Amino acid sequence: MPKEKQLRSDIAWSTPEQIGVMGYDLADELIGKIDFGDMTFLILTGRLPEPRESHMFNALLVVSVEHGITPSAIATRMTFAGAPESLQGAVAAGLLGLGTVFNGTTEGAAKMLMAALPDPKAEVPLDELAGRIVSERKSKKRSIPGIGHPIHKPIDPRAARLFAIAETNGFSGKYVQLMKLIQQEAEKAFDKVLPMNSTGAKAAICCEMGLPANITRGLGVISRAVGLVGHILEESRDPMALEIWHRVDDEASQHSRGQLRKKGGTK
Amino acid sequence: MPKEKQLRSDIAWSTPEQIGVMGYDLADELIGKIDFGDMTFLILTGRLPEPRESHMFNALLVVSVEHGITPSAIATRMTFAGAPESLQGAVAAGLLGLGTVFNGTTEGAAKMLMAALPDPKAEVPLDELAGRIVSERKSKKRSIPGIGHPIHKPIDPRAARLFAIAETNGFSGKYVQLMKLIQQEAEKAFDKVLPMNSTGAKAAICCEMGLPANITRGLGVISRAVGLVGHILEESRDPMALEIWHRVDDEASQHSRGQLRKKGGTK
Amino acid sequence: MPKEKQLRSDIAWSTPEQIGVMGYDLADELIGKIDFGDMTFLILTGRLPEPRESHMFNALLVVSVEHGITPSAIATRMTFAGAPESLQGAVAAGLLGLGTVFNGTTEGAAKMLMAALPDPKAEVPLDELAGRIVSERKSKKRSIPGIGHPIHKPIDPRAARLFAIAETNGFSGKYVQLMKLIQQEAEKAFDKVLPMNSTGAKAAICCEMGLPANITRGLGVISRAVGLVGHILEESRDPMALEIWHRVDDEASQHSRGQLRKKGGTK
Amino acid sequence: MPKEKQLRSDIAWSTPEQIGVMGYDLADELIGKIDFGDMTFLILTGRLPEPRESHMFNALLVVSVEHGITPSAIATRMTFAGAPESLQGAVAAGLLGLGTVFNGTTEGAAKMLMAALPDPKAEVPLDELAGRIVSERKSKKRSIPGIGHPIHKPIDPRAARLFAIAETNGFSGKYVQLMKLIQQEAEKAFDKVLPMNSTGAKAAICCEMGLPANITRGLGVISRAVGLVGHILEESRDPMALEIWHRVDDEASQHSRGQLRKKGGTK
Repeated sequence: MPKEKQLRSDIAWSTPEQIGVMGYDLADELIGKIDFGDMTFLILTGRLPEPRESHMFNALLVVSVEHGITPSAIATRMTFAGAPESLQGAVAAGLLGLGTVFNGTTEGAAKMLMAALPDPKAEVPLDELAGRIVSERKSKKRSIPGIGHPIHKPIDPRAARLFAIAETNGFSGKYVQLMKLIQQEAEKAFDKVLPMNSTGAKAAICCEMGLPANITRGLGVISRAVGLVGHILEESRDPMALEIWHRVDDEASQHSRGQLRKKGGTK
Repeated sequence: MPKEKQLRSDIAWSTPEQIGVMGYDLADELIGKIDFGDMTFLILTGRLPEPRESHMFNALLVVSVEHGITPSAIATRMTFAGAPESLQGAVAAGLLGLGTVFNGTTEGAAKMLMAALPDPKAEVPLDELAGRIVSERKSKKRSIPGIGHPIHKPIDPRAARLFAIAETNGFSGKYVQLMKLIQQEAEKAFDKVLPMNSTGAKAAICCEMGLPANITRGLGVISRAVGLVGHILEESRDPMALEIWHRVDDEASQHSRGQLRKKGGTK
Repeated sequence: MPKEKQLRSDIAWSTPEQIGVMGYDLADELIGKIDFGDMTFLILTGRLPEPRESHMFNALLVVSVEHGITPSAIATRMTFAGAPESLQGAVAAGLLGLGTVFNGTTEGAAKMLMAALPDPKAEVPLDELAGRIVSERKSKKRSIPGIGHPIHKPIDPRAARLFAIAETNGFSGKYVQLMKLIQQEAEKAFDKVLPMNSTGAKAAICCEMGLPANITRGLGVISRAVGLVGHILEESRDPMALEIWHRVDDEASQHSRGQLRKKGGTK
Repeated sequence: MPKEKQLRSDIAWSTPEQIGVMGYDLADELIGKIDFGDMTFLILTGRLPEPRESHMFNALLVVSVEHGITPSAIATRMTFAGAPESLQGAVAAGLLGLGTVFNGTTEGAAKMLMAALPDPKAEVPLDELAGRIVSERKSKKRSIPGIGHPIHKPIDPRAARLFAIAETNGFSGKYVQLMKLIQQEAEKAFDKVLPMNSTGAKAAICCEMGLPANITRGLGVISRAVGLVGHILEESRDPMALEIWHRVDDEASQHSRGQLRKKGGTK
């Protein structure tokens, strides 16, 4: 390799007496002084939040911690059953499912909103914008991230609550308005109930807070790590993994059990 | 399979109008009402913390978020370089290194303290207990979890700070005292500076709070998930993974480069 | 940091014209010249196998590729359902469950055999040795790795087949004999049918081949990676993950659904 | 949930006496009868390979086993340093980096070839097709998967070898020809040396063999699992992870070490 690039990280450093994190003295200025939500804000944005940001950001973290028995929780429990000595492996297995289908929709919705409204101060007719987004996606048969829910109809209670907190804290600007208009336009265009889901609300509020779209995906991963540890603790007290395994294996192989390609099953 | 075991989880449920988490209405009672640290406490213990518990628990979470460039952070950055589309995979890769060597010591220290003092109300001479723990481990050449640090001498500033917060909040009982005595006995027995590290302080305080030992390991995983997302954000702005790769590859293969088993290198 | 340690790896190197792997020219001496099983042997042992080693080693790899719907396969399918864009993440999730409960037993059995018989040439009465191992483990209530199976009774067909191949290829020495004696002693001591399982056969044969115990665990991981890719391909054609999710979620939360701590569910 | 979907898997089943895998009796027809490469072919395609397919497929697996110290290998070694008790976690960490940047290019190249030539029997002027693919990608500033290499110039020895084996075994049809023409057109269009790399050769040959594009990505994951176990074995004998860590940490934090936001660094 020719000339070397300097390695550099500005996140943290240590000396014998001190540890610096994002420019603060960890022991004297952070531990016991700020809560875990604000620490997360500091790590992801490089600065401490104002009180209204702290309130909003903690709400965004709390909303995604727990969804009950999800595919992610099942993956964590199955992994824990095989490797109970490796709690970190069971959490990792659950996080790996937070891809495009579930967790990615927040990022997708945030990107959709930012692409439509790069400058939140620009004077743009938002209803027209919403109409155009919906009709374009409909004609291309692309889904609209942030709306629709199989259970929570006509409204996802988490979305309503997040928007109320955003209102109180001054984060209910054009992105929130645009997301709401998109939801209304979509219901008209598809002629069915398509509730705003928590993903859509999170995405719009992240845009209001000036958080980049790739952070939104990180938020989901962080929140779910908490929930998955909770599932491991419950699984260790009251397991369900092996029971699920036996039921699934029994049913799934009943069609083919005992059947081989050739008569007699051996050569 | 004979008769089936009922599957049951008491963590969360959904109806069209409501989502319950640990017996609370997620939208009405948790989002915007409690911070992320308290939500974590609720998930891991099944109840909301008292104010002194909340202060202490948030401190325990904040302390382990960030340690700078660790093996874990390098694994995350290497993974992100190969699969930037999968943020969750890069976080998972970093978490997988939180095993016995680094993260496991908190659990080890907590188990050591709980085994030595199963009932924190029992009247036991703690100095004798500490002496016995150290001499037993020394004679069996087993390490003592929670003490010793390569950089932070004579004292780890995080440990000092955690103990001060424990004192203020009424979590400075027999487990903290025992951990401190073990550290003193170990310095005498091994005749060298062996500072209390953050791991030892965390473990003793978890015991004081009545948190089971397996939760301590989960705390480290949760905290580090935050830090690793921070490393991904920095890596995406100012990468170091490929530079590290090229340097290591160059140096590591220089001994053998060009050498084959047979003359000419082909058959 | 004081003086640096030289980084060194002897696995592979590249020049513009050549790639060396374990001392062989990858393009000229390995690709198209050796099969995948022999390549695996080369990577794990540093040399190419003799024909009898190749036959035996390929059998050891083939035996563990596929066990149908296992907890591991379910974890992979759940992860794929959430992140279908990340095949590597779904495989990784499945591998993470190959811990002490399932995969670790091969390593445990190999270590048990090697500890009992460090020198396979020593003249030792194997039946006494087997008796001692079983009675010691029984009195300490420790399980005996490599024996017992919930379905395959009185004999695991994979174990029988592996032992037959070992016989043919000259790998049926003292470790195999000892493992068989342990199984017989265990059936007597516990007074029930305890078949030799595939794990016990694999472990004994690895000892015969001179493979270190930590390699045995790697073999299982490699074999299962193949099986898990097969499950992903089937899941992408004929999915079951979401159906399992819905069934489990429905049943597991039915006890608590709709129940909150306080009357009315809000403050 | 309304009516249930039947769970079904046709990969494997067990009865007390037999284990069926892809319609074969595992013990009687597969273990000891087929090698690991053919077992992999069976799992991924549902049938046993013909001899020429076996030769070609084993070559495709062998080619990607080992690339020396890659980002993936570094992630595995870092993870093993922190969690040596969890070999499966260290392998999983390394596999997680096999995403779009490295491993995904094989799939990308295979999809490019299949999209351009859906029916390999159709009479199409391949040189025109290649020219169109290159000029379209160039005008859209999209990269061309399968060509270019930082080290192996003017030709990647693995690609040359794979094509020779394809020729011998009758897998050197239109896809291979098209891939070669694309490489030539690209060198002309970009006016620089752009060697066919192993990824391009693998992709073209997978198309010739009729393997679907998503299988190509699985092949890379399977091969690398072998290589990563090799790195773990070397790391356990002759470690480099901690040395890399200390060097990187030292250099990366030297800019900011000791610097806090406020004078004095404390409140």
